[in-house]
Amino acid sequence: MLGLMQDWPLTCDRIVDHAKTWHGRREIVSRSVEGPVVRTTYAQVHERARRLSNALKGLGIKPGDRVATLAWNTARHIECWYGVMGMGAVCHTLNPRLFAEQLCYIINHADDRVIFTDLTFLPVLLQHRANMPGVKHIVVMTDPAHMDRAAMPGTLCYESLLAENSADCVWGGFDENTAAALCYTSGTTGNPKGVLYSHRSSFLHTLVTMGRDVMGIVEADTVLAVVPMFHANAWGLAYSCAAVGAKLVMPGQKLDGASIHELLESEAVTFSAAVPTVWQTLLIHLRETGGKLTTLKRVVIGGSAVPEAIVRAFRDEFGVTVAHAWGMTEMSPLGTMAAPTADIAAMDPEAQLRIGLKQGRPPLGVELKLVDAAGLPLPHDGATFGRLLVRGPSVAGAYFKGDGGDILDAEGYFDTGDIATIDSHGYMQITDRAKDVVKSGGEWISTIEIENIALGHPKALLTAVIGAAHPKWDERPVLLVKLKPGETAAKEEFLAFLEGKIAKWWTPDDVVFVDDIPLGATGKIDKKLIRERMKDYVLPTARSAAATG
Amino acid sequence: MLGLMQDWPLTCDRIVDHAKTWHGRREIVSRSVEGPVVRTTYAQVHERARRLSNALKGLGIKPGDRVATLAWNTARHIECWYGVMGMGAVCHTLNPRLFAEQLCYIINHADDRVIFTDLTFLPVLLQHRANMPGVKHIVVMTDPAHMDRAAMPGTLCYESLLAENSADCVWGGFDENTAAALCYTSGTTGNPKGVLYSHRSSFLHTLVTMGRDVMGIVEADTVLAVVPMFHANAWGLAYSCAAVGAKLVMPGQKLDGASIHELLESEAVTFSAAVPTVWQTLLIHLRETGGKLTTLKRVVIGGSAVPEAIVRAFRDEFGVTVAHAWGMTEMSPLGTMAAPTADIAAMDPEAQLRIGLKQGRPPLGVELKLVDAAGLPLPHDGATFGRLLVRGPSVAGAYFKGDGGDILDAEGYFDTGDIATIDSHGYMQITDRAKDVVKSGGEWISTIEIENIALGHPKALLTAVIGAAHPKWDERPVLLVKLKPGETAAKEEFLAFLEGKIAKWWTPDDVVFVDDIPLGATGKIDKKLIRERMKDYVLPTARSAAATG
Repeated sequence: MLGLMQDWPLTCDRIVDHAKTWHGRREIVSRSVEGPVVRTTYAQVHERARRLSNALKGLGIKPGDRVATLAWNTARHIECWYGVMGMGAVCHTLNPRLFAEQLCYIINHADDRVIFTDLTFLPVLLQHRANMPGVKHIVVMTDPAHMDRAAMPGTLCYESLLAENSADCVWGGFDENTAAALCYTSGTTGNPKGVLYSHRSSFLHTLVTMGRDVMGIVEADTVLAVVPMFHANAWGLAYSCAAVGAKLVMPGQKLDGASIHELLESEAVTFSAAVPTVWQTLLIHLRETGGKLTTLKRVVIGGSAVPEAIVRAFRDEFGVTVAHAWGMTEMSPLGTMAAPTADIAAMDPEAQLRIGLKQGRPPLGVELKLVDAAGLPLPHDGATFGRLLVRGPSVAGAYFKGDGGDILDAEGYFDTGDIATIDSHGYMQITDRAKDVVKSGGEWISTIEIENIALGHPKALLTAVIGAAHPKWDERPVLLVKLKPGETAAKEEFLAFLEGKIAKWWTPDDVVFVDDIPLGATGKIDKKLIRERMKDYVLPTARSAAATG
Repeated sequence: MLGLMQDWPLTCDRIVDHAKTWHGRREIVSRSVEGPVVRTTYAQVHERARRLSNALKGLGIKPGDRVATLAWNTARHIECWYGVMGMGAVCHTLNPRLFAEQLCYIINHADDRVIFTDLTFLPVLLQHRANMPGVKHIVVMTDPAHMDRAAMPGTLCYESLLAENSADCVWGGFDENTAAALCYTSGTTGNPKGVLYSHRSSFLHTLVTMGRDVMGIVEADTVLAVVPMFHANAWGLAYSCAAVGAKLVMPGQKLDGASIHELLESEAVTFSAAVPTVWQTLLIHLRETGGKLTTLKRVVIGGSAVPEAIVRAFRDEFGVTVAHAWGMTEMSPLGTMAAPTADIAAMDPEAQLRIGLKQGRPPLGVELKLVDAAGLPLPHDGATFGRLLVRGPSVAGAYFKGDGGDILDAEGYFDTGDIATIDSHGYMQITDRAKDVVKSGGEWISTIEIENIALGHPKALLTAVIGAAHPKWDERPVLLVKLKPGETAAKEEFLAFLEGKIAKWWTPDDVVFVDDIPLGATGKIDKKLIRERMKDYVLPTARSAAATG
């Protein structure tokens, strides 16, 4: 027997409809690509998004077609999202940090028909225009005054398109499982793969993140969305801020400390979200200038593990609460949030800070499973490492066009590729990537944990741990150290430094001093390249084991 | 094109599964019907609910069958909910405040197969057992020691059933639109009508209420759920507390001031929800005993309009924040919440208090529409009265078995039967019931507003306003006053008291002093009965209009 409740599909147009009706006067403030800080409202964004829907229809776009954006966080970018999704087309966010070749691959793979681009990224598109034959139109997100027709052949002007179209259009009304958005994973191995979000998955993600133990944004908040809309959907802020009617501040392309600080203060921001490097940059700026944070109350940090120093600085120097979050493109992106439980809130501040460095616990709607190599569940004891699997209505079930094949296990879980622990508070901690963890005698050793401890050595500038082949243990850890300029050190200094800080059997079998530890495009250590460079390396212990074996 | 996200049906078993996995040790504390305060956990409730599912299967219950509860708020009642819903049966909450005849009508209309009852309500069920032939089993929610077999012929013992069954059962796995729960409206006119909730509607309601601008409950909260599970689903607390892992305190049958105060303090409650009369009773108790509220931070008040004195007492005497909520059984029940916007938060405390007396604004997932008699939208100006229509995924689309016929308008909206205003902050205020509002010359006059102001007259004990027929204006208001014991008054005193406090054309055409103003079962003024009693009444102005007309 079915219930007798209303049929009300969870579609994203309803989010901005709600914002217009209940929070129409609430502002969206953007540092525009053209320069000035500009102000609009949810009511205006709603109206302009509908004009954009009509404009797209005029350009031949039909429901299901892919329309891409290559843009910074601005109100115009939000208009594009809702305008594209509202008419039933698919909004494909392109990451401008990718190499042009990857960008072209993704545009062609997605069959993008129209690309909305900020002035910043127009040159790279025009330069490679011939390599994206399926793209019918490029729309430059600016006004006629900033259109240089000679330098922008065959492009359309965003503001002209909006001016030429009415806001009278049919929105929504389709199945909630209709595709709404597309985002490609950065893909450290192989080609990038597309995650095709549905209206339902994004709507549910929005509701989940609105929980007070999750993002917990309210109307009275002013939110600075630093995390880019082109990367993991700005952690859902373009939806959740509209849903609650929070004032939204969009930083455009200026993410330096001074620019971020200026917006935080001038707009009286109460909440913000970004990756650790942004906050590191801001904190350095504040210390150099003696700057204060007079309105900011909470920051959510994710994207990579949050360094203790950042949490401590926000807490002790600026009275700002840090919430550590974890997620991935395949999860829309939110997976966990380190919101204190009653037990944790009762701890002393140091203990609270330490547990807050873990990635946190999942809200209702995100299922986590920690399993061993055979797929069997592992205890939530905070010590046992396992592969982290996830399931939920906002988790990918397959990649676009079937890339990567069947990505779910028999129970419908997606493998994150991460190795993690879960403690008795339900707090998950990422300990390694599955492909990086050192498998020693059937047990796993966290390379990240050893790296982080070794980085505490006063002579270390960068550290990395990889697994090296061993005839008896399969793999043993080897520590690579790039010393600070002018320093010299012996292996034994580092081994002695690690003693007592990690389990004895985790102690690296060797320490190798290197000139360079390569970093990837996202600032993370490029272990794939390190392993390539070290492919002829043989562990001293392997040599002796071989000799005596 | 459809998105490629996981198929993860929104079913209620997942809520208690989540609670067990992530908040298994968190407590549910109940004042038991047998007397003592008893403690359990989400893990135990989960396990026992699964035993209950198996017990129901043993009793012949199949998916879709209705299983009723007639019970106070206790952990056992929560086990019943999840045990019944988890196996795909429909949990029908019976309201013990109904007359036996209505109870029998509802039980038979719903085709209840099994009734779970607290000891308190067993006598009435046994007395009327012959009038509910479809009921196969009555399960007494107690342990063997409290079973008086002689006095309870043909009944089953709850704890024995659980002990006899294993927790190993198949849960969930059905369509999210499957019926999960059934609740009958109190129905002031005609027979009660059943609202048949789906798993989807209850799950979405849970997510919506978790928003920080809505109920905003977190794990670190300790929640006293005073609002009964048998009335409007305890405002969703049995779901939302499990969803976030809040400690849950269940008051059983003792709702007097001393008992509520004892639980608030002994369990360190931070959040509670109840109708105004409960808080009125508590406040009187606190004043009489000099009691304090040392842990309570927030109370949500709904069910009927919150009196200003309660908000003021909580704020000024006890430092507790009051949030005014509005909803109805047909809405699962939440409709609006008076959570302050940035504009309101910037007002002085008196202005904030005053606007907080309105019913508030809808979260994403609840659509409100204010319309005139012709169904056309009215402005959100805080002054224009209109019929209040609602739409959303947790709003009824029809009543059980088609009672009441087609209840939605052409756009899918449900008519609440309320007359309301909506102001520029998006705050809705109920001004009257549609059937009570006075229609004077095509304009509407709020009876509730006049009543409330007249009640401020020092001689008034109770006041009521009804519309009386008028040859020129169709209807004109007449004020009924029950004076305080020993008082006497002239009409003119009340008319003078109203002057300047209401629009001149709202002034009642007559004041009638009465011995009695009848109240209905829910404590509200019974205007239907008043109108019956006044059916031969003729307005003085009607007589003169007729004479001169």
